[in-house]
Amino acid sequence: MYPALKKHFAELAELTDAEFERIATCFSEKRFKKHSIILQPGDAVSHEYFVQKGLLKTFLLDDNGKEHILQFSMENWWVSDYQALHTGLASSFYIQCLEDVELLYISYEDRRRLCDEIHQYERFCRLKVTAGFISMQNRVMALLKNDAQSRYQQLLNQYPTLFQRVPKALIAAYLGVSRETLSRLHR
Amino acid sequence: MYPALKKHFAELAELTDAEFERIATCFSEKRFKKHSIILQPGDAVSHEYFVQKGLLKTFLLDDNGKEHILQFSMENWWVSDYQALHTGLASSFYIQCLEDVELLYISYEDRRRLCDEIHQYERFCRLKVTAGFISMQNRVMALLKNDAQSRYQQLLNQYPTLFQRVPKALIAAYLGVSRETLSRLHR
Repeated sequence: MYPALKKHFAELAELTDAEFERIATCFSEKRFKKHSIILQPGDAVSHEYFVQKGLLKTFLLDDNGKEHILQFSMENWWVSDYQALHTGLASSFYIQCLEDVELLYISYEDRRRLCDEIHQYERFCRLKVTAGFISMQNRVMALLKNDAQSRYQQLLNQYPTLFQRVPKALIAAYLGVSRETLSRLHR
Repeated sequence: MYPALKKHFAELAELTDAEFERIATCFSEKRFKKHSIILQPGDAVSHEYFVQKGLLKTFLLDDNGKEHILQFSMENWWVSDYQALHTGLASSFYIQCLEDVELLYISYEDRRRLCDEIHQYERFCRLKVTAGFISMQNRVMALLKNDAQSRYQQLLNQYPTLFQRVPKALIAAYLGVSRETLSRLHR
């Protein structure tokens, strides 16, 4: 069951087959059509999602209705509103499917329980969020330096296929640059 | 030994006295004078630091020599170059003392070993880096929205005493705003 998930865990944690089977019982599968919104501001957030197939964006709208993208999530990526998930606050973000999507999902409660039961599951979660933390730090520094060129290059290195899968306007909303600047960088 | 550290762990993890004593053997204490640089770009990074007393900044200089601040670290905060620590790459950052500082430090190897030995130590590390991840996400969104006012307010909420301890120019370098904008916000 869930071979992509099993392989994904094995990259960071040493799980026995029995442990993975226990973990797998906590996941369920769900499909969404392109454009579906799986989370929106104000929602209670009780699940974390693993992307088996497809692409999503996590974003919010500012007071002027302008879209700002926190994250793109494609195959083997995790997505949720983590602040809401960990604090119990309502979601601040939209999560929307940019393609047809196949997700696995686990509840926060099951995640907590697995961290208690299976030390290597907690190992996996620690290493995964550490990678996310480092990635966000790099993004903060790139935004502070206000260097559109290096932000563009960073995204291209991190997700080389993203530029084929996502409209330019969304790339611009992720990088925090205008579409004109993006077109210049892209040439 | 290390009562501040013990209290700090107890906020997120359930450690027995024996476990804490084992953990404490992996830490050592060091003092630095104001202005000391404890890490600089190109250095190998083998330790994580816990601030017992004082205040530090983690920053880098861009190609024009302009300073950009990733993080201020005060009492009960952890500091290192985490990307370098976890990947083995050389440091990209300076870490400098803004006051006289008392640090506890642990090697990456000991940290890894403690995560293996003591499940609750790994719990602590996971929850700590999760909080850091969420905080960096919020900072990314504030920078993307390019809203100096909310960035200023966020920092004031997060570290209310920081504004008494840090020169305005450094606050501006953290927020990614000019000193003029900062003075306007401060009034």
